[in-house]
Amino acid sequence: MNIGVLILAAGEGKRFGGNKLIAKIDDTPIIIRTIRIYDNFEKVVVIGKYVNELIPLLTDQIVIYNPFWREGMSTSIKLGLRFFRNYDGVIIALADMPFVSKEDVKKIVDGFKPKCKAVIPVHNGKRGNPVLISKYLFEEMEKISGDVGARVILNKLKEDELCFVECSEGVLIDIDKKDDLMRFRDLHP
Amino acid sequence: MNIGVLILAAGEGKRFGGNKLIAKIDDTPIIIRTIRIYDNFEKVVVIGKYVNELIPLLTDQIVIYNPFWREGMSTSIKLGLRFFRNYDGVIIALADMPFVSKEDVKKIVDGFKPKCKAVIPVHNGKRGNPVLISKYLFEEMEKISGDVGARVILNKLKEDELCFVECSEGVLIDIDKKDDLMRFRDLHP
Repeated sequence: MNIGVLILAAGEGKRFGGNKLIAKIDDTPIIIRTIRIYDNFEKVVVIGKYVNELIPLLTDQIVIYNPFWREGMSTSIKLGLRFFRNYDGVIIALADMPFVSKEDVKKIVDGFKPKCKAVIPVHNGKRGNPVLISKYLFEEMEKISGDVGARVILNKLKEDELCFVECSEGVLIDIDKKDDLMRFRDLHP
Repeated sequence: MNIGVLILAAGEGKRFGGNKLIAKIDDTPIIIRTIRIYDNFEKVVVIGKYVNELIPLLTDQIVIYNPFWREGMSTSIKLGLRFFRNYDGVIIALADMPFVSKEDVKKIVDGFKPKCKAVIPVHNGKRGNPVLISKYLFEEMEKISGDVGARVILNKLKEDELCFVECSEGVLIDIDKKDDLMRFRDLHP
């Protein structure tokens, strides 16, 4: 099966107060930590506002610059999906979620059965990220707009079209504010 | 018909001795002049070595950074085509050919009949650029490698699969060396 990874890194980081993706955890920028989780996959990183700061860190990656980043996350997802149009599924990863583990990603991919329109990681009963979207949703995804992600599409699906896999706490943790950096820094030594 | 434009701007500019695309003709960088020719089309600009210098000029464009730029032009074409996979055809434009006219592009698009696997502009009996590639060649194009363009595929086609349109001298002029800048500067005031 052909599965691509779309890493969303075009956000403004308003609550963080700047470009959180170059902030470091144990000397490694968050964006790099996140990319390494998906080492074994073909991937594309979508960037926006902070293109000038991020590009020097991404010279070994396929990168798409999204000129519509001000219009929100949906525009980055749509640009990225165009790249994987003939794939069986795409993992939509958030660049500010560096604590997802490689095992989590393996579980998500292993959980991708023919009946699944999407695979969603859960931890303690809560839905997390990254979500794997099957090709049968690509067309629907092209209709989203504004600052929304895959959730608006997933919420419309029947329960039995979704597949859930139990994962680590990392699927729930995003770096949102400067406090989060300190709070989660010790989580994955 | 759905026609996209792929602007190839990932070259090293060896013979020019640096990034020729930011060199100016009448106060406008070459890359901007070229982009303006395709104003009315959906387009993607593929960049490589000179990403840091070019990105500030391209913040209103969809840009793909090609990490494989050292392997040659074929890698940029293949990345860009992925973006237009469900289009009827793609115009493969070279960023260092700023003297192509909008009329030339219109002729090329108008010349795209169902029988054409590609439309090639000619001037004084010589084949030029940009070439319009029909979707029926996309799969073939994915097999090219190294520092080659569409020509290797076009050369394999039968004469009656190709369509030719007479265009301006601009379809033959690329900025290759620093001398060219001076030589062609006065061509299009």
